[in-house]
Amino acid sequence: PFEVDWDAGAVELGGFPDYMSKEIHEQPAALRATLKDRLALDGTVSLDLAGQGLDLRGVERIVIAACGTAYHAGLVGKSVIERLARVPVEVAVASEYRYSEPVGDGKTLVIAVSQSGETIDTLAAVEAARGFGGRVLAVTNTRGSLITREADAVLLTHAGPEVAVASTKAFTTQVAVMQMFALELARVRGTLPEERLLELGRSLRLVPEKVEETLAALEGEYAERLAEAVEVFEDARCALFLGRGEAFPIALEGSLKMKEISYVPAEGYPAGEMKHGPIALVDERCPVVAVLGEGVVREKTLSNVDQTSARGANVICVARSDDADAKRLSRVVLPVPEAGGLIAPIVDSVPLQLLAYGVATSRGLNVDKPRNLAKSVTVE
Amino acid sequence: PFEVDWDAGAVELGGFPDYMSKEIHEQPAALRATLKDRLALDGTVSLDLAGQGLDLRGVERIVIAACGTAYHAGLVGKSVIERLARVPVEVAVASEYRYSEPVGDGKTLVIAVSQSGETIDTLAAVEAARGFGGRVLAVTNTRGSLITREADAVLLTHAGPEVAVASTKAFTTQVAVMQMFALELARVRGTLPEERLLELGRSLRLVPEKVEETLAALEGEYAERLAEAVEVFEDARCALFLGRGEAFPIALEGSLKMKEISYVPAEGYPAGEMKHGPIALVDERCPVVAVLGEGVVREKTLSNVDQTSARGANVICVARSDDADAKRLSRVVLPVPEAGGLIAPIVDSVPLQLLAYGVATSRGLNVDKPRNLAKSVTVE
Repeated sequence: PFEVDWDAGAVELGGFPDYMSKEIHEQPAALRATLKDRLALDGTVSLDLAGQGLDLRGVERIVIAACGTAYHAGLVGKSVIERLARVPVEVAVASEYRYSEPVGDGKTLVIAVSQSGETIDTLAAVEAARGFGGRVLAVTNTRGSLITREADAVLLTHAGPEVAVASTKAFTTQVAVMQMFALELARVRGTLPEERLLELGRSLRLVPEKVEETLAALEGEYAERLAEAVEVFEDARCALFLGRGEAFPIALEGSLKMKEISYVPAEGYPAGEMKHGPIALVDERCPVVAVLGEGVVREKTLSNVDQTSARGANVICVARSDDADAKRLSRVVLPVPEAGGLIAPIVDSVPLQLLAYGVATSRGLNVDKPRNLAKSVTVE
Repeated sequence: PFEVDWDAGAVELGGFPDYMSKEIHEQPAALRATLKDRLALDGTVSLDLAGQGLDLRGVERIVIAACGTAYHAGLVGKSVIERLARVPVEVAVASEYRYSEPVGDGKTLVIAVSQSGETIDTLAAVEAARGFGGRVLAVTNTRGSLITREADAVLLTHAGPEVAVASTKAFTTQVAVMQMFALELARVRGTLPEERLLELGRSLRLVPEKVEETLAALEGEYAERLAEAVEVFEDARCALFLGRGEAFPIALEGSLKMKEISYVPAEGYPAGEMKHGPIALVDERCPVVAVLGEGVVREKTLSNVDQTSARGANVICVARSDDADAKRLSRVVLPVPEAGGLIAPIVDSVPLQLLAYGVATSRGLNVDKPRNLAKSVTVE
């Protein structure tokens, strides 16, 4: 539980109106700290897992166990690990995994992701992994936390203390760690040419400044767009957040932020699933927020979005600023810079953080301490 | 698209006010037809997969690919297959899977589930499986459909034609097929004693009459309870559907029915995830529908439910009729008969079908043809 008196709080806030806003803006620094000493100028990743006694060579299957926001970082992890390192990955909700009599063996690596390192269900998932002889890698923001003592190896996110209940910088740094892990595993397994891995590594080095750019644009040049997107939510009875591929977990995470701090019932869905039910919700009071992403899935998502606007939805798209299709199909485009490589999921997260933040503050809600929620869930 | 003139429709409806209601009541017969010739009196399962050329002995990993309701049947499948046959199972949204550069090999079995057998994304998932040399088992309700021609082996659900857009009998028969498959695979792999498998098989034989009992109770003795649950939704701005273990996919499916035909933004969540965000939505206008299920997860779900009622939620529980804890914590208990074995997921589905149906009809909506939706999604 977080308690400071107003003055101390104001100092710590360093001019920001609340911790969530402060933490959103700390993301470039948090990402830089997380990449530092792990990602060289030329794009080489060194995570020192072998040095910690975790040998990746025997890994035949990966389970990522996590809760809430960390689960969404795990979903990005699954996508990038499978794509680059060609190992099957399951992402498990930790509270489900622990009671599921999970299948695994010594060739199964369980990656447990928890900002606090004290999430009770994630710790129990680690115990379950031990039960079948699995190896455990912890991804956490908290040095010395319980999970670091239970794992074979630890990858710290260096996000710094996160005070706001709704996670922002912890999420994006978790994603960056998952991406570095995927590069490392791909190198160990030899699934991609060295030059391609270095190129992807170098793309990741650009993430902090791309996040800076995104923030600057949405609070400068494009501030009115963000305000218009917030306005779309003024009268919203619910919302759908859509995406495909690595943009899907970002949509999910965006919908979670919206639920957490604005109390708008917002559900995240793979865009291609929309026609299998959720599109029934769509009308002028159910905005659709689409994360377009890049590559083949962008076009497919656009086509799904088109179907929702044909049914009266107010569409908000997270898209590259020059995306003419997005402009044509949307009421509002929240622009993100040209990305490429591994950049998109992290950069795409930022507009959705600002959107949830904007909707919550426009409703006069306490963004740092939303109702009913605690920062870390340390009891079942 | 479904088109008949009123008279023909009335005849086909056989006295029911609409197809959804008719199909809900056809479930006992549909389940009987699906179990027939496959599940012997003593509980022996024979699916004749080897006869179709599908040898289960080499299977080291299973991917279940599906969309919408069929995806939820797949989630039940994952749970029961892993628990009984000890093979890791991934359930993939077909529209995501097809574009994910999926990992797999000749020891990977892809189970593609589609009522119509023509779902475009599920067919594409089958093609992706072929790309890595995977074997394919189709579970479909439609003899001669495209998917039956693409698969190595086929398991038909014998639900009969399903006309209502919101699937009911197709879902519960898909679940029954997944359960029989799990028993067959467990026998082939020798993961459980023969006597235990027969016992579980015999429990499944009771499903049709347990569904009959459930329907009779909710429309007879407990009709007022169902009406009260519908009334809770009168003023609802959203809803959360919660469950753990095999009750989780049933909660998800219940929330999908609610979205599809009543347009209430209802989200399904693993009960243990609620505290990681969704509980922020909870107030007196956000009912919580909990599927308690059986075993260790029942108690854990009850504890989660308790936290929502402490925050003002109107709780509706699907529970055994004698569950005193459920009674204490809920505004309404929708009772299901004592189940055991493999019965719970199918029986637990029924109250949620009737609840969504009741809410939709109380709002004067067309349950058979909800807005924006088509019965089968045969284009992307």
